Amino acid sequence: MNEELARHHLSLIQGQRPAVHCLTNTVVQSLTANMLLAIGAIPSMSSDITEVADFTARSQALLINLGTLDPGRKDAIQAAITSAKNNNIPWILDPVLIDRAPARLAYAQELIGQAPAIIRGNAGEIAALGSDPKSLAQSSQSIVAVTGAIDFITDGRRESELRVGHDLMSRVTGIGCAGTAALAAFCAVVTDADYFGAVVSGLYILGKSGENAARKAPGPGAFAATILDEVYFTSQSSSTEGSPK
Amino acid sequence: MNEELARHHLSLIQGQRPAVHCLTNTVVQSLTANMLLAIGAIPSMSSDITEVADFTARSQALLINLGTLDPGRKDAIQAAITSAKNNNIPWILDPVLIDRAPARLAYAQELIGQAPAIIRGNAGEIAALGSDPKSLAQSSQSIVAVTGAIDFITDGRRESELRVGHDLMSRVTGIGCAGTAALAAFCAVVTDADYFGAVVSGLYILGKSGENAARKAPGPGAFAATILDEVYFTSQSSSTEGSPK
Amino acid sequence: MNEELARHHLSLIQGQRPAVHCLTNTVVQSLTANMLLAIGAIPSMSSDITEVADFTARSQALLINLGTLDPGRKDAIQAAITSAKNNNIPWILDPVLIDRAPARLAYAQELIGQAPAIIRGNAGEIAALGSDPKSLAQSSQSIVAVTGAIDFITDGRRESELRVGHDLMSRVTGIGCAGTAALAAFCAVVTDADYFGAVVSGLYILGKSGENAARKAPGPGAFAATILDEVYFTSQSSSTEGSPK
Repeated sequence: MNEELARHHLSLIQGQRPAVHCLTNTVVQSLTANMLLAIGAIPSMSSDITEVADFTARSQALLINLGTLDPGRKDAIQAAITSAKNNNIPWILDPVLIDRAPARLAYAQELIGQAPAIIRGNAGEIAALGSDPKSLAQSSQSIVAVTGAIDFITDGRRESELRVGHDLMSRVTGIGCAGTAALAAFCAVVTDADYFGAVVSGLYILGKSGENAARKAPGPGAFAATILDEVYFTSQSSSTEGSPK
Repeated sequence: MNEELARHHLSLIQGQRPAVHCLTNTVVQSLTANMLLAIGAIPSMSSDITEVADFTARSQALLINLGTLDPGRKDAIQAAITSAKNNNIPWILDPVLIDRAPARLAYAQELIGQAPAIIRGNAGEIAALGSDPKSLAQSSQSIVAVTGAIDFITDGRRESELRVGHDLMSRVTGIGCAGTAALAAFCAVVTDADYFGAVVSGLYILGKSGENAARKAPGPGAFAATILDEVYFTSQSSSTEGSPK
Repeated sequence: MNEELARHHLSLIQGQRPAVHCLTNTVVQSLTANMLLAIGAIPSMSSDITEVADFTARSQALLINLGTLDPGRKDAIQAAITSAKNNNIPWILDPVLIDRAPARLAYAQELIGQAPAIIRGNAGEIAALGSDPKSLAQSSQSIVAVTGAIDFITDGRRESELRVGHDLMSRVTGIGCAGTAALAAFCAVVTDADYFGAVVSGLYILGKSGENAARKAPGPGAFAATILDEVYFTSQSSSTEGSPK
């Protein structure tokens, strides 16, 4: 059931090739772009203040990831979120490592006040935001996804649990970050702004791809390449359903 | 014939180990550095204004790629281009995604006024510059390379078409960007500033390596590693001709 | 003997999962993070001035790599070193390419005055600092590691030579940089601040992993993934000794 819906969403991505603008940390930019390309989306990553609003306006979803920050990047993040709101484009927050520095936590909370469609973090990151996932979803009016050995997704009313994935996913930098970017692509194609369904689909595809990759690649170096291959193969085999353009 | 000349150029790179300074986007820095190392060139990538002129002056070619920008990077780009001109070093422009933001397009046009040896883009990017490739080559006095399913190279007088490469090259971030960096290495070693020949050789090697890689690696994750291997193997097998130092 | 001690140190890393904050160049951030994850350490890489001191204070070691610089990054480097000193955390300097620009060399010398635990460079970089490794170790009161075909480690009194590694390690960008990050993780777990032993262990593991990887992966693309796998496998097989948490 997850699988069927997820493959339908993947076929829509293949058909529509949504553009996803990513203000993400420099450590994971390459893996993130490759993940988006593997599922059929089109990444861009400029953080220049003179162009970030235009890039966002011409995208179908926006990713904000706090993994590496600097003052110029914060200005770019604000310009991108404003552009996303003005153009009715969903944006997703990945509050990486907010449990490590008070300034980062405060910044994440400020951003959550600007209505992200989705907040995706691990248990420590979501806990640092000061409430349980369900309450956070209600207060922020966002979908909250807590990823880990079990993925938990809630919109404050509905809940879903996914038991997919593999330990090696935590031994490659940016698998979670790249996965959040993939969620942005799913958000870009769902109808009626069904972001809850988009997140469940995206995390299901990522987790299953991780399981398949781990069967083929026992170490983290080969695993990083293989999970991209698995996502790509799944996308390709789902694309007969979509309308390529 | 392409193959023979390309292998001769590769052997020169192996013999001379040219340094290529790259002001390129942060998404593709790693793949770009690895592509240069695979063909035998020496990459550097600092964008610090206090040292970028020195790095450029001690290089044999300069790459400017607009994929991710910020104000400091633009200052560094200008300092590097000035240093390249003062030291008679060829520089290459990769006007990434200029069709996505007016500010970026205007910036690219400003840079083209400073006489790049080569402009390399896809069809959309070159079209955004407002003229056909041949006219652009004539007005800018640059070699223009339009890459895609068919690569087209012109200096405004001569023209060359290459039917090499593979679709997977568009499913890995930065293959085009890394390829442009490779062109810079070819420019560094050709005699009599024959940049037209350098571009044909470079794109031929890249395309053939992509074809070979796709036969071995069916997904984009493995493909990214395999194309580097193929470039490296071709370089190694060409290097008997050169004078190693 | 090297092997036994190195495996003991690896088991400590597996047991303690030290956090290593890295102010490193953007080209090698991904490989560096993956190297740290492969040996069992936890990387972070923010260079934001508002949070870099907190990130450093909550880490067990700090890496400073000069590969790509900009003014903001230099401010962050100073804040991180000050935080490391205040919290008694060892920090390691990788003076990348200081032989290429006078401003970078001067900056490296300024940093060396702030008592790094370790200075790791290739022969050209260490030579650029103006003295032989032993004298440099004595004047800086640091461990000096000169890496290359033969690795040489000295604290100004003791000396160690390692004949490990493989040529392919110089054909992948950032293997040296990522290796220096691994040294930081070894420094984080040794008792009595035995950084000399930490460096010998770390370079031994890296070199042996490189040798093993080269037997399996003949080209640089596959090699980059395979050396991570080899480091990971060695870490996993050493971890029975440690106390996982």
